[in-house]
Amino acid sequence: MFVLGIDPGLSRCGYGLVRSHANGALEALAAGVVETDPDAELPDRLRVLRDELRALLAEHRPAAVVVERVFFQVNARTAMSVGQASGLALVEASAAGCDVAQYTANEVKQALVGYGGATKLQVQRMVAALLGLHEEPRPPDVADALALAVCHLHTAPLARAIDAAGRR
Amino acid sequence: MFVLGIDPGLSRCGYGLVRSHANGALEALAAGVVETDPDAELPDRLRVLRDELRALLAEHRPAAVVVERVFFQVNARTAMSVGQASGLALVEASAAGCDVAQYTANEVKQALVGYGGATKLQVQRMVAALLGLHEEPRPPDVADALALAVCHLHTAPLARAIDAAGRR
Repeated sequence: MFVLGIDPGLSRCGYGLVRSHANGALEALAAGVVETDPDAELPDRLRVLRDELRALLAEHRPAAVVVERVFFQVNARTAMSVGQASGLALVEASAAGCDVAQYTANEVKQALVGYGGATKLQVQRMVAALLGLHEEPRPPDVADALALAVCHLHTAPLARAIDAAGRR
Repeated sequence: MFVLGIDPGLSRCGYGLVRSHANGALEALAAGVVETDPDAELPDRLRVLRDELRALLAEHRPAAVVVERVFFQVNARTAMSVGQASGLALVEASAAGCDVAQYTANEVKQALVGYGGATKLQVQRMVAALLGLHEEPRPPDVADALALAVCHLHTAPLARAIDAAGRR
């Protein structure tokens, strides 16, 4: 199963593709950052981001796309551009026929480190350990995107099992 | 010239299409609200909104699309969903080959009523007067969308003249 994590942002949008093998091992297949020119016009920046996300989905055909769910931001202007980026990611993933999931940063920390107050470095080290990387993934946008994908691969099977148990 | 104003929102997204005639008269050709089901999944709601906006652009082929520029919101959660809706509107307008403009609510008030502190009702009455409507457009999302289109039709010729003068 291929899962694409997306840490939404307009200037920098992190992505990370993780594969889960039949034996439970996780493997990072691709990761990077989509950047848009802060001096360009907003509609053009959004189109660049949309086109790049669309290309990633077409190339990797993930079964699921996981976009960070952001509730609070330091300022409303940042919230606006994170909202714009996340909206595009959610729509493109849905239009590509992927399952779409969202987790907050705290849910990711809870899933990976065991408590929601974990530091960024703890999350990055756990991502590196789970994916068999020799060092923490960088930049942080990439680490966050990979963490989202790993969180989903940890969480989704349990959620499915609970869902199935509830239907019995 | 046809201009489509969009008051972005996820639950309710207002739109208003205004035509400027050669004699300077303005005419409201279409107006309404795109609503999405608050109980549906977010990616599905965003796709409904995107598809409706795309259909409006294909049907009316406006020369310009004007989306309210929002900086501050009462709360970050609202900012997030307004950002998601506005991002979709900006991308779809750009992809449809339209000119894309953004104005803040204060800029719209300034253009229509003459000062940025005008009340909503003053703006609605001015929209009705300029468009020759017998009553204020409702709901407010529609009035705001029409006001954006009118603002652009008032502002854009002056902006073009200033731009042309600067190039001489």
